[in-house]
Amino acid sequence: MKQKIEVGVLGATGMVGQHFVKFLQDHPWFDLTWVGASDRSAGKKYRDATSWRLDGVMPAGVAGLTVEDSKPGNAPKLLFSAMDALVATEIERAFAAAGHALVSNSKNHRMEPDVPLLVPEINPDHLKLVPLQKKRGWKGLIATNPNCSTVVLTMGLAPLKPFGITRVVATTMQALSGAGYPGVPSMDINANVIPFIGGEEEKMQQETQKILGDFLGDRVQPLAARVSAHCNRVPVVDGHTVTISVELSSKPTEAAILAAFENFRGVPQERNLPSAPARPVIYMPEKDRPQPRRDAGRERGMAAFVGRVRPCPALDWKFVALGHNTVRGAAGAAVLNAELMLTEGLLA
Amino acid sequence: MKQKIEVGVLGATGMVGQHFVKFLQDHPWFDLTWVGASDRSAGKKYRDATSWRLDGVMPAGVAGLTVEDSKPGNAPKLLFSAMDALVATEIERAFAAAGHALVSNSKNHRMEPDVPLLVPEINPDHLKLVPLQKKRGWKGLIATNPNCSTVVLTMGLAPLKPFGITRVVATTMQALSGAGYPGVPSMDINANVIPFIGGEEEKMQQETQKILGDFLGDRVQPLAARVSAHCNRVPVVDGHTVTISVELSSKPTEAAILAAFENFRGVPQERNLPSAPARPVIYMPEKDRPQPRRDAGRERGMAAFVGRVRPCPALDWKFVALGHNTVRGAAGAAVLNAELMLTEGLLA
Amino acid sequence: MKQKIEVGVLGATGMVGQHFVKFLQDHPWFDLTWVGASDRSAGKKYRDATSWRLDGVMPAGVAGLTVEDSKPGNAPKLLFSAMDALVATEIERAFAAAGHALVSNSKNHRMEPDVPLLVPEINPDHLKLVPLQKKRGWKGLIATNPNCSTVVLTMGLAPLKPFGITRVVATTMQALSGAGYPGVPSMDINANVIPFIGGEEEKMQQETQKILGDFLGDRVQPLAARVSAHCNRVPVVDGHTVTISVELSSKPTEAAILAAFENFRGVPQERNLPSAPARPVIYMPEKDRPQPRRDAGRERGMAAFVGRVRPCPALDWKFVALGHNTVRGAAGAAVLNAELMLTEGLLA
Amino acid sequence: MKQKIEVGVLGATGMVGQHFVKFLQDHPWFDLTWVGASDRSAGKKYRDATSWRLDGVMPAGVAGLTVEDSKPGNAPKLLFSAMDALVATEIERAFAAAGHALVSNSKNHRMEPDVPLLVPEINPDHLKLVPLQKKRGWKGLIATNPNCSTVVLTMGLAPLKPFGITRVVATTMQALSGAGYPGVPSMDINANVIPFIGGEEEKMQQETQKILGDFLGDRVQPLAARVSAHCNRVPVVDGHTVTISVELSSKPTEAAILAAFENFRGVPQERNLPSAPARPVIYMPEKDRPQPRRDAGRERGMAAFVGRVRPCPALDWKFVALGHNTVRGAAGAAVLNAELMLTEGLLA
Repeated sequence: MKQKIEVGVLGATGMVGQHFVKFLQDHPWFDLTWVGASDRSAGKKYRDATSWRLDGVMPAGVAGLTVEDSKPGNAPKLLFSAMDALVATEIERAFAAAGHALVSNSKNHRMEPDVPLLVPEINPDHLKLVPLQKKRGWKGLIATNPNCSTVVLTMGLAPLKPFGITRVVATTMQALSGAGYPGVPSMDINANVIPFIGGEEEKMQQETQKILGDFLGDRVQPLAARVSAHCNRVPVVDGHTVTISVELSSKPTEAAILAAFENFRGVPQERNLPSAPARPVIYMPEKDRPQPRRDAGRERGMAAFVGRVRPCPALDWKFVALGHNTVRGAAGAAVLNAELMLTEGLLA
Repeated sequence: MKQKIEVGVLGATGMVGQHFVKFLQDHPWFDLTWVGASDRSAGKKYRDATSWRLDGVMPAGVAGLTVEDSKPGNAPKLLFSAMDALVATEIERAFAAAGHALVSNSKNHRMEPDVPLLVPEINPDHLKLVPLQKKRGWKGLIATNPNCSTVVLTMGLAPLKPFGITRVVATTMQALSGAGYPGVPSMDINANVIPFIGGEEEKMQQETQKILGDFLGDRVQPLAARVSAHCNRVPVVDGHTVTISVELSSKPTEAAILAAFENFRGVPQERNLPSAPARPVIYMPEKDRPQPRRDAGRERGMAAFVGRVRPCPALDWKFVALGHNTVRGAAGAAVLNAELMLTEGLLA
Repeated sequence: MKQKIEVGVLGATGMVGQHFVKFLQDHPWFDLTWVGASDRSAGKKYRDATSWRLDGVMPAGVAGLTVEDSKPGNAPKLLFSAMDALVATEIERAFAAAGHALVSNSKNHRMEPDVPLLVPEINPDHLKLVPLQKKRGWKGLIATNPNCSTVVLTMGLAPLKPFGITRVVATTMQALSGAGYPGVPSMDINANVIPFIGGEEEKMQQETQKILGDFLGDRVQPLAARVSAHCNRVPVVDGHTVTISVELSSKPTEAAILAAFENFRGVPQERNLPSAPARPVIYMPEKDRPQPRRDAGRERGMAAFVGRVRPCPALDWKFVALGHNTVRGAAGAAVLNAELMLTEGLLA
Repeated sequence: MKQKIEVGVLGATGMVGQHFVKFLQDHPWFDLTWVGASDRSAGKKYRDATSWRLDGVMPAGVAGLTVEDSKPGNAPKLLFSAMDALVATEIERAFAAAGHALVSNSKNHRMEPDVPLLVPEINPDHLKLVPLQKKRGWKGLIATNPNCSTVVLTMGLAPLKPFGITRVVATTMQALSGAGYPGVPSMDINANVIPFIGGEEEKMQQETQKILGDFLGDRVQPLAARVSAHCNRVPVVDGHTVTISVELSSKPTEAAILAAFENFRGVPQERNLPSAPARPVIYMPEKDRPQPRRDAGRERGMAAFVGRVRPCPALDWKFVALGHNTVRGAAGAAVLNAELMLTEGLLA
């Protein structure tokens, strides 16, 4: 890659935007030169418009950028969207119409039939939905990554898809960083569990079916599995843990399942994309792993970790999965999507 | 009750023993006059033999008792066992043989075919197993209460038993106090989740089937449901939270399920036993309850709380249940057992 | 007390207001019959106007009260103020002018020269400031209790006042509940310390001097001690812990200090006021106590606990103090103030 | 550095030993080729002898090393000691006698008059104590680093030494990792503060005086300041926070103090030692920083962070300091000591 591609972040001053800013630091292909936010921040320096909430301090490179209004104009072609769902629909469409490649972490377009809901190791062929977006009159495109808890579930399930997934019961224990900022009041969650996250279960259930679905030439046929999610917030900083019971039609052995986890690779690994982990799914043999505080940040937060594969008396097999919700579940996911899209020629 | 019955606690100096000591304070029927522990402590005053680990300070009434060796002799007839599983089998049997009524929180005898595994609101008729213990040559008896996470699951499921429970997937988020003392190192669990608790899943699965099983004259027929548990430790002080997906053969409506929770009562409520909560299962209509820190201690820790009943795409219905693990899940459970047994004439 | 006195709470729907509602439940002298809040809530039932944030559920007795506008009119004579500091000044004065006895937890009037900043065990004679308020043309009065961290420091210092306090260095580790709701975002404080609480150090320093000051006939002479506070937020639910180094002019022995803590009593104890703890300051001899989670709630949250008295190489002595910030540091403090005032004839 | 120097770690299987193993990964000068532990582990592979407790997994390079008995023999000249204080005295002396350079994190020799208690940026000249050790008949030497909380205090104070430090009151809020493994039971510290750490206050008080003391040709004259410490454990994973009030004889201005922090550098910076942070003390101007979770790990855990400089009503100035207790407070401190010693020719 001789010269870096200029990229921008929409919603750059918010918590998710900050994760993009942090993840894009020193990226070998992408150069963050443009930050957009609401009218309120436009015209200010990023350092002045932003209360930096992440660990450490704001990357020096972005601090001096001037925040732009969220309108097409001088923005680079490739834009990452970290916008709040309340405003993302119209703004993302305006940018797509104007020719930008919107790689969005927002939920707004995920379930649109012509928008790929992408996990590069799982369904890179869903990018073939992009040409259908021309019917909307867009010169550009929108591609999305899943909800942070969906990523963990689908990366745990994808290696098992060849065995015929017919039924899934998943319970999440989700980190605080998944709720943004200010997010969950400490009085609500300190030494506590909150057994509810608004809209999360529906997202996990629907998105999982779409991601694991098959591309049929002009649409994605959702996976015909019955998927049920119980979503909980726990006092963990980063890393969503998911317990998974799964029914598999081909009744594989434990050895077959372990081999499926072990051998799972995808296009990002084949193409050695810069943000791709060497192995997307890492099986941990220890009896009490993976654990969010100890494992979520490994492999720069881009791998999913699974463990405790054992028979499930109610369905067929059960195990636990873990992933870093703000990296693999948000900013890192979108950047990996963009890397894949670049190698597919979609950003030309 | 004109005069209180003298009772003792075996394993009184340990963490579970301390919970018994605390729960028995000011009990209207029982008077704690005897504390037993290992050789190491025998002969000392309770205050000197015990590092008090519970909130507040040691109850004054017990501080001056002399710790006795764990051998039948001068102990009262009714004994609560808080002994470590490593030593409980032989000692409990010795006391039962010698004529004591052992009401045990230890796991050792729970799955024995002639020992009731009792939740007074659910299976009071399992006490009819007690006469079978005569075949062992015991002059006394052993009755047990379930593992702390099993209590929560079974109290959540019992109201649904009439609908035909055929399959259950449960995931626990268990409190630190369930692991005793010193229990889980803070380095392992601070801002973390540990997706493993040794032996816990097996206990939850087997005990649930026994508790919800039917007494058939000379034995308990376990419930023929497929029960699967995922057990996790979370940084919560007290209160085990359990997410539950359940398959019900009669396909009840949501209204029928809510009415079942609402109307569930048992013998302890009919007889107004001193430790019985007014309602054993309390349905909370709030969208994000129950929560361990806010709810586990209500009703003196003796009720189970359920919430979030909603359809389960994978099985039939899903909901969340919560109970106080050291009260309803341990000391309080055993004391309620003893109260039931007293009214059944089993302690005469 | 033949008949209970009707009382009201201003700012009743907020977090501090909820603490008043909870603390006044079943009070033997006071009957909560009136709740006031902002225009936004006025006219609604309390249950509808209030998101209950405390453990457990809203007391049934108050749920059906209609929230009143925060204006004098049909309110009872005795009113507790839990109002936000942004609005409390004018509203409290309006009520005082109209003849109400305002017993306020808000900071607004604490440092006014004619307003008592009261800790009943320490400075009951400061109530003699009340007649000076007539000069403002008020038919009623305002009395205040200190900031939550100040209460802990002053109760720890008061027994030592006879030894001549000349210098104090205090560091607080303050609970989350002291910040109200939503208060501190969990992303900021989970597994963290925040070494700053806005305005808190100034309050602790000034209020301590006033509370420990002497009433000189027409004014309070602040204690001429140099007081320095370092205020920190820690991930604890309830209970402010304070480390204290103190310089004492009379150079007492350790035995004298322990005796001072041991023997400290005040008017509330003499008069056996309903909310008064049997002993306002409890010295714990254990080497690692007091601790917030284990001790703050003892004595219904109304006592201060001290421990670890030992020589201070930099000043003279050092020790640790603890108190329940939302009880002794807020609602309970104000109610105890009102109890004292009632026995002084100030509420007639 | 053409060829790396072989080094070993004594006590390598324990928690502190694991921190050494982790910190030494990819060190440019040192190559970890030898691990020693107790008889119990000797002869096993490191991977088999060690329960890895740190985040992530054991470094591959060390996993296959054979654990050696803790006796001089085939060990490299330079040894880091992570031994438990119960056994360190005799073993460290045996190695020193045999010619090894012991760079120890253990407390045992810190206060010996002929042993440097080293913070390379503060007192590199204390290495001149080493030749005095010849009098013991040692062919080798022992150098030590301070207790983890002492490092933070002394790095916060060192820039102020020119102003004449005469009195210090410090209160710590110390992380869980400072207690080793299993360390503090979660039941003791979850949502709690423990106002006591055995022996810690004495260490902080004495060590600070020695570190900030002057080398007088044949001994170190301790700093004649009155230093008082209050030590507390809080539920934080890594990073000790310390509030500091300080009396300074020259009465510097705030600007002078800030400049002192800003300009503070030492020999490690001059010589660009591999583990030296660019700036040993970083002043954060934000009103609520530094914070352990957000800042302790910056600069690879090797810098101290200070903030909130403001006047102290009781002494002269007050501020807060923070450092990573297992890096700058333990393994990293010892490695930086060794780097300094290497450049001083002490390892030849």
